[in-house]
Amino acid sequence: MAYDPNNVFAKILRSEMPCVKVFEDNKTLAFMDVMPQSEGHVLVISNEPAQNILELSAQGAAAMITTARKVALAVQAALEPDGIVLTQFNGAAAGQTVFHVHFHIIPRYTGDRLAPHARNMVSGKLLEPIAAKIRSAL
Amino acid sequence: MAYDPNNVFAKILRSEMPCVKVFEDNKTLAFMDVMPQSEGHVLVISNEPAQNILELSAQGAAAMITTARKVALAVQAALEPDGIVLTQFNGAAAGQTVFHVHFHIIPRYTGDRLAPHARNMVSGKLLEPIAAKIRSAL
Repeated sequence: MAYDPNNVFAKILRSEMPCVKVFEDNKTLAFMDVMPQSEGHVLVISNEPAQNILELSAQGAAAMITTARKVALAVQAALEPDGIVLTQFNGAAAGQTVFHVHFHIIPRYTGDRLAPHARNMVSGKLLEPIAAKIRSAL
Repeated sequence: MAYDPNNVFAKILRSEMPCVKVFEDNKTLAFMDVMPQSEGHVLVISNEPAQNILELSAQGAAAMITTARKVALAVQAALEPDGIVLTQFNGAAAGQTVFHVHFHIIPRYTGDRLAPHARNMVSGKLLEPIAAKIRSAL
């Protein structure tokens, strides 16, 4: 399967679709997942047209983890979760739903139960104050 | 909680405990998970004494993802799974069981069901032929 330049993350990268931004640099973009599995669920994407980490350059992967680590530190400082899961799905069989390489940063709170992946949409209005807290901790 | 230098991955790094090695460089080590969630489950660890990605240096994180990507490519070539999950747990609330920073590389096969995390131990004898396939694809 070839990379589809009209996937939703490609559209966000081209500003054809909105996102609640947390951080960006010249290789990556971090924004709130609109279908959060927990409070503070952030996605980190590469600006390379790669479906998954197997197609991504080594430099692109390093840039992604650099941003993911930075955002995870800010999530920890801003929201004080009890744990943080980093996850990255490659292929539908692995649970991938958008075929543009991305990392999930999912805060965990003791006793919580994760919402299902890519199921229920939350408004940007609800996500913006959480994003603001994370940005202020960057 | 401070880093415990006697955690099992620290012992593996010091060769005080064995592992079925897949790859190593001057910053990282990749070896077979002895409690695999699927065939070809590999762990990538940093040689920094960091409990999690929040304590790891940016350079250490970049080295880990560089190795994880390289090993994922070899797992894909060697075992041809239908998907690959990369995951990294920070804190017990996130599912972390060994408090030395690590990435899981977990192949997924259509229709499979993952074995539980850190539950059932498999012998090195069973893991070695799988590791050999992965090493030969590196």
